Amino acid sequence: MYDLNEDTITDAVLDRFAATPDARLKLLVQAMVRHLHAMVRETEPTFEEWRTAIDFLTRTGQMCSDVRQEFILLSDVLGVSMLVDAINHRQPDGATETTVLGPFHVADAPQPPHGADISAGLPGEKLLVEGTVVAASGTPISDAVVEVWSADQDGFYDVQRTDLDGSALRARFRTDRDGRFHFWTLMPAHYPIPADGPVGDLLGATGRHPYRPAHVHFMISAAGHEQLVTHIFAEDSPYLDSDAVFGVKTSLIQPFEPKPAGTAPDGRVLDQPWRHLIRRFGLKAAGSAASDLSDIRTTDYVMSDN
Amino acid sequence: MYDLNEDTITDAVLDRFAATPDARLKLLVQAMVRHLHAMVRETEPTFEEWRTAIDFLTRTGQMCSDVRQEFILLSDVLGVSMLVDAINHRQPDGATETTVLGPFHVADAPQPPHGADISAGLPGEKLLVEGTVVAASGTPISDAVVEVWSADQDGFYDVQRTDLDGSALRARFRTDRDGRFHFWTLMPAHYPIPADGPVGDLLGATGRHPYRPAHVHFMISAAGHEQLVTHIFAEDSPYLDSDAVFGVKTSLIQPFEPKPAGTAPDGRVLDQPWRHLIRRFGLKAAGSAASDLSDIRTTDYVMSDN
Repeated sequence: MYDLNEDTITDAVLDRFAATPDARLKLLVQAMVRHLHAMVRETEPTFEEWRTAIDFLTRTGQMCSDVRQEFILLSDVLGVSMLVDAINHRQPDGATETTVLGPFHVADAPQPPHGADISAGLPGEKLLVEGTVVAASGTPISDAVVEVWSADQDGFYDVQRTDLDGSALRARFRTDRDGRFHFWTLMPAHYPIPADGPVGDLLGATGRHPYRPAHVHFMISAAGHEQLVTHIFAEDSPYLDSDAVFGVKTSLIQPFEPKPAGTAPDGRVLDQPWRHLIRRFGLKAAGSAASDLSDIRTTDYVMSDN
Repeated sequence: MYDLNEDTITDAVLDRFAATPDARLKLLVQAMVRHLHAMVRETEPTFEEWRTAIDFLTRTGQMCSDVRQEFILLSDVLGVSMLVDAINHRQPDGATETTVLGPFHVADAPQPPHGADISAGLPGEKLLVEGTVVAASGTPISDAVVEVWSADQDGFYDVQRTDLDGSALRARFRTDRDGRFHFWTLMPAHYPIPADGPVGDLLGATGRHPYRPAHVHFMISAAGHEQLVTHIFAEDSPYLDSDAVFGVKTSLIQPFEPKPAGTAPDGRVLDQPWRHLIRRFGLKAAGSAASDLSDIRTTDYVMSDN
């Protein structure tokens, strides 16, 4: 059958993929064809609009490099990344919700002792983070690996700063026998995702801003549990209700408590006001349904320098 | 509202695009979000599958260059290009059906006299093409510009051959006062689309071949009419029922009549068998709904050299 027209072409294309050897690939490709064709039928794009879409996708691919993944950024701003995350993390009660990794995780972060100040001399409001890692059942998990990283008061991560020698505001700890860890860092600022490429053009044309609310990243790994990748968001940050990448979940927002100058719980004396973040993280037991996230979570987009 | 989860995220993303200033862009972007999210919900991709899709799109963008448009090729093999074509060319009775331009149109083709042989000494079976250009009403159109081009007996266009100096198998004519034109060329062969990139990988993984059936291209322009871009397919070609880009329409298939050696209608004496293609082309009157195709039809993918 080759009399292809507006009525027949979708079935013809689906049929052409019918012999796909891998059943899962066949399902995915045919679903893509059905949804793509449905979108075209619904919107009836002109050739000029179709051409604009081709050019947008082309520019998005050509913006990608070893240090920037513009298609992931596009997936992020369209809410696709978080939808895929949600589908792959239907959480049991007691497990902390997940969100995007973001581009600034570094594999080999420094491993300072508990209680260390990881701000490396950068200016800003001091933040004491005290965490506990538990199983979904509530049992503390000892010897869990806790990786933390965050932006500075200007909204930049250490890897974005050319004036820094070495890392700052990032570290790797191991929980003690009660599942606890604590450290000093700086209160992070909100910041924009890279807006100098096609995704930035899309945000601009649709009246959207590129900002993410202030947050601290946590990646927590423990034997017998799914790795947890999440952020904790500051409840007084702007953009909580309009995160450019849709990464905010209510359960991940909390106070970074403002505290007056004086003596902190660990005995440190501060001559300026400081902040205090206390958080419990629940890990999901590893199961056959657990996804291997190592692939998505080691490559990601990077932020621009402004 | 920022409690985004599997149930709420699609509405949240749609809402984020609600302030798009341009109404048409808003409609297109929101439709894209709805269909993308519907596809994700239906197929529930793993992170690994999502990552594979990101990588495929990235490689597709990075394969594009001044002389190759892999995203158009992707659109072609998914039937999207022909669906957009069909939607933009709902033809009145009497108008010839359209199909894809393909990558081998050249803007400034030679302008030989009627009856010329444009095969430039290449080997192959001689083909006499006799055409008439008419309005959809049937009235002949004089002084129409008729551009023609086709592959040789090995399936290559002149621009793909490094052993050719100058053009071959392409020309531009003007119809006479009866709307007619005629010329000698060579019987074209079927050929593969470029299969050395991500689109070729997709065809391979899904058990599809990359071939297009044998055809001659025509682009016909006349004052007061929509430009017609089409092919005429040889009814004895392989791949008519499985054109890799879904460009075949029943009305565009016809005999390229085999003829014995001897004297052709124009008096030329042939010592080998030859072919005869006789075709009438109906042009649609230009109207306010006519699309400007110049954009899509001046850039396109190019074929590989094998």
